[in-house]
Amino acid sequence: MSMLENRTYDELNAGDTASASHVVTERDLILFATVSGDVNPVHLDEEFAAATPFKGRIAHGMLSGALISAAIACELPGPGTIYIGQEMSFLRPVRLGDEIRIELEVLEKLPKNRLKIATQVINQEGKKVVDGVATVMAPTEKVKVPRPQLPAVSY
Amino acid sequence: MSMLENRTYDELNAGDTASASHVVTERDLILFATVSGDVNPVHLDEEFAAATPFKGRIAHGMLSGALISAAIACELPGPGTIYIGQEMSFLRPVRLGDEIRIELEVLEKLPKNRLKIATQVINQEGKKVVDGVATVMAPTEKVKVPRPQLPAVSY
Repeated sequence: MSMLENRTYDELNAGDTASASHVVTERDLILFATVSGDVNPVHLDEEFAAATPFKGRIAHGMLSGALISAAIACELPGPGTIYIGQEMSFLRPVRLGDEIRIELEVLEKLPKNRLKIATQVINQEGKKVVDGVATVMAPTEKVKVPRPQLPAVSY
Repeated sequence: MSMLENRTYDELNAGDTASASHVVTERDLILFATVSGDVNPVHLDEEFAAATPFKGRIAHGMLSGALISAAIACELPGPGTIYIGQEMSFLRPVRLGDEIRIELEVLEKLPKNRLKIATQVINQEGKKVVDGVATVMAPTEKVKVPRPQLPAVSY
């Protein structure tokens, strides 16, 4: 069974990293538009999007935010983390079919179990699409739990 | 037919506002977990969540980010906006059944069609759960388009 295991404040040090890859699909855009309510046609309507400076449909910027937050919640530090803040700069568009890599790196250990974590998203061309920094309260107790199973979502 | 209409850079001024309300449901948490991959049990497993400092399940922090980005993309300034950056502080948990209000206010008009927009999320008790600031490039051309229809998503 797949497990979720955290890394506690005491276990973590500046320079520690985690990463995750994700291929952006039509399904992502439909589900993100559904849960957020963001039906801006630049994400959903190829004809509209073709006439914008992006010359085609792009993913919602905050989809990258969602993937960053997932990497923090599930990988570094993982379960037990309290999310305090996130800064993001959206540098380049993410398109359907792009394979993006979410890269986390502990920048600094702060008092009261807090960490600053660099949060970057890099596309398949090696270009940075999102830059940012998360602030979290890291867990102090070890957690290792079965990965919750989600119901199948369809449309 | 429901339309999406933007507010251009020239039409907008500091102090202009928009808001949207949202009741947080089980469906939101399932869909957000699915699209982000964030299956942290604090969002999905009542027994696990009851033993955390939150004493029960909470919404993903970045769900508020998704709702903020939707309000920017669909309301203020709306279609044609380019999202440049977002800072968020997660101040309090959001729980199942909470009715949250996303409040946007133009803070400042900057050169090159840029705006700083205050992005707050307030719960049904009037308490601020997320504070933040968005930076966007506002549209220069008026857009009024039919709101794209999404397929029905189920699980």
